[in-house]
Amino acid sequence: VFNTSLSEPVPEGYEDVTNIVPPYSAFSPKGQPEGDLVYVNYGRTEDFFKLQREMNINVTGMIVIVRYGRIFRGNKVKNAMLAGAKAIIMFSDPADYWASGVQPYPEGWNLPGGGAQRGNVLNLNGAGDPLTPGYPAKDYTYRLSPEDGVGLPKIPVHPIGFHDAAHLLRNMGGQIPPNYWKGALNVSYRIGPGFIEEFKSQKVRMHIHTNNQVTRIYNVIGRIRGALEPDRYVILGGHRDAWVFGGIDPMTGAAVVHETVRSAGRLLHKGWRPRRTIIFASWDAEEFGLLGSTEWAEDNAKLLQERAVAYINADSAIEGTYTLRVDCTPSLNTLVYDLTKQIASPEEGEEGVSLYESWHKRDNWTMDRDAPRISKLGSGSDFEAYFIRLGIAAGRARYTKNRKTETYSSYPVYHSVYETFEIVERFYDPSFRRLRAVAQVRGGLVFLLADSQLLPLSADQYADSLGKYAQRVAQLAHKHQAEMFEVSLDALFSAVENFTVAARDFHERLRTLNRADPLQVRIMNDQLMYLERAFIDPLGLPGRPFYRHVIFAPSSHNKYSGDSFPGIYDTLFDINNSADPQKAWEEVKRQISIAAFTIHAAAMTLTPPA
Amino acid sequence: VFNTSLSEPVPEGYEDVTNIVPPYSAFSPKGQPEGDLVYVNYGRTEDFFKLQREMNINVTGMIVIVRYGRIFRGNKVKNAMLAGAKAIIMFSDPADYWASGVQPYPEGWNLPGGGAQRGNVLNLNGAGDPLTPGYPAKDYTYRLSPEDGVGLPKIPVHPIGFHDAAHLLRNMGGQIPPNYWKGALNVSYRIGPGFIEEFKSQKVRMHIHTNNQVTRIYNVIGRIRGALEPDRYVILGGHRDAWVFGGIDPMTGAAVVHETVRSAGRLLHKGWRPRRTIIFASWDAEEFGLLGSTEWAEDNAKLLQERAVAYINADSAIEGTYTLRVDCTPSLNTLVYDLTKQIASPEEGEEGVSLYESWHKRDNWTMDRDAPRISKLGSGSDFEAYFIRLGIAAGRARYTKNRKTETYSSYPVYHSVYETFEIVERFYDPSFRRLRAVAQVRGGLVFLLADSQLLPLSADQYADSLGKYAQRVAQLAHKHQAEMFEVSLDALFSAVENFTVAARDFHERLRTLNRADPLQVRIMNDQLMYLERAFIDPLGLPGRPFYRHVIFAPSSHNKYSGDSFPGIYDTLFDINNSADPQKAWEEVKRQISIAAFTIHAAAMTLTPPA
Repeated sequence: VFNTSLSEPVPEGYEDVTNIVPPYSAFSPKGQPEGDLVYVNYGRTEDFFKLQREMNINVTGMIVIVRYGRIFRGNKVKNAMLAGAKAIIMFSDPADYWASGVQPYPEGWNLPGGGAQRGNVLNLNGAGDPLTPGYPAKDYTYRLSPEDGVGLPKIPVHPIGFHDAAHLLRNMGGQIPPNYWKGALNVSYRIGPGFIEEFKSQKVRMHIHTNNQVTRIYNVIGRIRGALEPDRYVILGGHRDAWVFGGIDPMTGAAVVHETVRSAGRLLHKGWRPRRTIIFASWDAEEFGLLGSTEWAEDNAKLLQERAVAYINADSAIEGTYTLRVDCTPSLNTLVYDLTKQIASPEEGEEGVSLYESWHKRDNWTMDRDAPRISKLGSGSDFEAYFIRLGIAAGRARYTKNRKTETYSSYPVYHSVYETFEIVERFYDPSFRRLRAVAQVRGGLVFLLADSQLLPLSADQYADSLGKYAQRVAQLAHKHQAEMFEVSLDALFSAVENFTVAARDFHERLRTLNRADPLQVRIMNDQLMYLERAFIDPLGLPGRPFYRHVIFAPSSHNKYSGDSFPGIYDTLFDINNSADPQKAWEEVKRQISIAAFTIHAAAMTLTPPA
Repeated sequence: VFNTSLSEPVPEGYEDVTNIVPPYSAFSPKGQPEGDLVYVNYGRTEDFFKLQREMNINVTGMIVIVRYGRIFRGNKVKNAMLAGAKAIIMFSDPADYWASGVQPYPEGWNLPGGGAQRGNVLNLNGAGDPLTPGYPAKDYTYRLSPEDGVGLPKIPVHPIGFHDAAHLLRNMGGQIPPNYWKGALNVSYRIGPGFIEEFKSQKVRMHIHTNNQVTRIYNVIGRIRGALEPDRYVILGGHRDAWVFGGIDPMTGAAVVHETVRSAGRLLHKGWRPRRTIIFASWDAEEFGLLGSTEWAEDNAKLLQERAVAYINADSAIEGTYTLRVDCTPSLNTLVYDLTKQIASPEEGEEGVSLYESWHKRDNWTMDRDAPRISKLGSGSDFEAYFIRLGIAAGRARYTKNRKTETYSSYPVYHSVYETFEIVERFYDPSFRRLRAVAQVRGGLVFLLADSQLLPLSADQYADSLGKYAQRVAQLAHKHQAEMFEVSLDALFSAVENFTVAARDFHERLRTLNRADPLQVRIMNDQLMYLERAFIDPLGLPGRPFYRHVIFAPSSHNKYSGDSFPGIYDTLFDINNSADPQKAWEEVKRQISIAAFTIHAAAMTLTPPA
């Protein structure tokens, strides 16, 4: 009998720590399933389709084994459940968690073979606490029974490292997979089911003893009351809970919140007070499904809808040593560029060079324009409820790897015991200049949003992005030319055009605004603040009631980016696999109509209010 | 063969009008059903329960005949469908549409025996256009197929007058009903099915040839731009479409809108301009399911959520000659009382008496307090989308009958050809002083809401009403004492207490507000404006996604009033008839928790914003 490891080898200096949580999949049910293994690559929808339709393998009653990466792990579990698997094992393949030429920790920052990735395996789609969807989990709140809870997996799940994975995969039998299903282990990556003839009688058994229970969590909230507009909120929020030591995730982010609070405190002592209220939030239970931030958003939804100007996220501040990475709503683009021009590059040899220039040089937004790349917000951190459910302008920034040459997923030691303070100090940012630069971006955004007389948000940038997203929908539609003959995108393009004109006129009027009149300033600021809110549809996206942003949603196809026009995109993306294509085409038409309407409605919010 | 009338006898002076729409049920499907009649009283849920459970009569394949009144006619049709009926006939019984001692029109204002009540038979529950729920029905909007449309009846429906009804009912056989099922016709009101032995072979056949089609409607919108806060809207809206001549419904309301516009125009000429923007709306297609007002609300939802202070409704201004009737959100109570003290009573012999005093004397709110009665908003007119879906403070006012002595439903000629200008001029308001008083109430509310520096809305009054509604829930719960042992209302009462304190503190702070500071005034006004919005739950009520107000919803039990705490109330009300009582009790608990949370959230909006 071969037993996989119960824990990771603890790094030097931490041997005496007694309460290290072993690698596990949070929210897995208990169970001791036994069966043959089937290897299903990344466990994506398209991987299961290939398995079932081309390889003719049915995983009913089997244990599937998949590698981490490409999509959120909760989606892998959901796909395995839908395919009928009785359990799922996830492993970190060196192809996805190993940078070439780098030593494993502590010699370098690669994932040792004994390391494994913890993480929750929920499919919440923004619901927060699985037992209280839509409402904050107060003492008095009605809780669903666990069977009815949102997104809880029904099959046992467990994560392992690649040493253990190699053992399990080594003798697998069955078909040889296509090359893109093969990782970097020295095994064949055969599909199964089960082992080769010689080991045919060997089975895999999982012993999962997770104990899921309702428990209290703690968000810590601080406020600086705004001097002139106390009822306008700019939020800096990041989580505080960590899987083990949290050296990167979340402490590089939590430290940024602390430093920003400290800076603000010093300014307050000097007599400064921002125009608007700043809220600092230290969230709990992010790792368990963004619970702290989502429950607080649910509890404060009305206040936030009416008063929140922007939400800046402060999770891990570094995942690589190459350059800045920013994901934000398009209306923050201009502010991000203006701000980074005033921050110094943290790179050695770039004295006198701005962060903007350094970033621009390393990651130009080639496809779209000559400026540093800014990406769409996806999910995976605490901005989700604020941006996707409530429609509050949001952004995040961190230091990242070179996306062209470093193709591993996330950063290698992600969610393992090897996320220590030392890995940051030795490898990621010995001078702490990169982290300071990230802190300056996050803090600078908060300060400018809170203290500028006119909100530094750009409707023009939103218009520009909407045009690009509409083009992207058109490109996808082009792949379905035959079926698209009776589906028109005219309404969508016409709405974008209308929005573009409204945005241009709005900024034109903004230039001649009488800034001495506090009500006139407030009125136009309100238009800017509520612009993001205009993209929220209270009816939500199909099947995802808490994803309400018509323009952006977390993608279930791609872990690292959000989808634009998710209602249209999701329906089109899978249309060839739809059980009822005619109905799916009707849904495409409905989604185009909803997107067009929403953009027209957003344009109306920019016109003179009477 | 006896044929019911195809049209009503046209009143004197209108004989040459050629395009009078005959009595029909709007949105009925086509069909020629034939079968035995079953009489089911008012067609309420409890009537069908009695029929099925106590009288053991199954209406499957039968045509049910019910009398108008007590609940909305669309609910009668829905109940008949659910019971399995193949068609439904509705008639106006003199017990419900005849005032004693009054002659039929044109000698008096009673309904002639040949008169019938037109009306739509939808079950929209706030959806607006049945083919575009949640979105405005633009040219480009995706439309559901009619089979999937919201609330469209699936069985033929037709309305008749009481002369025809007497013919159909006269020879019915079957059981003798309880007395409260008997109307005022000289027939036995036997239940059926079918006729007595002697006429047993006679059947009823309906020939329904309605032609349902998508058609264009026209809302007419006028605006007076606010001088200081153009982005704050006070809306006066009423419908313009009429079933025939619309002498009462809607013209007594449309005239009020016109007069208010005229008055405002005169003030504008004198140099006046209100602080906030006033929007005047003349809605189309109210009679077809509040379509004009709901589609406009859908089109402008974002603007309205962010900017609307209040909506005042202007449907029929008179339904009786006794006194004022006001239905409004509790936060308008104080304003309504203050305003009516400044308006003269329109009654003869009450010179020098205020409308308030006249109203107070005739309809004291005995149960609750010593003040004129104000009722909850239900539905049946265009305020619905504004109040129940969007959470905009709303109110309506009209002149009404004596609720203690005049027990007929609505007013006798309602939706018949006898709603003429002359019926108003001869019987309801010969001096037009009552209509002027109603115009002064509606217009006065609009002017004060638009022009007061501080919004004349009262959070204290809301607190008071919430306390009363919670007591009412407790009383209903008391009827289920045995099952309530594990259901607690503590969270609800505690939330109301919290809200009451927050409201008191808010008004305390309001008294010391620095009114010279435009931002401070705006901030507290915003808190008042958004108070009503705080009661909106985007997830909606169970099974009624477009009814989103947690405190108020149209009742399906009672046509003339709204329900308070509808989520709790509806579940408790029918719990003894529930197919799964355990699940229903869980829903009661969930609804209590939602109500408590919503009230806590509303209380938060009243606390200092930072």
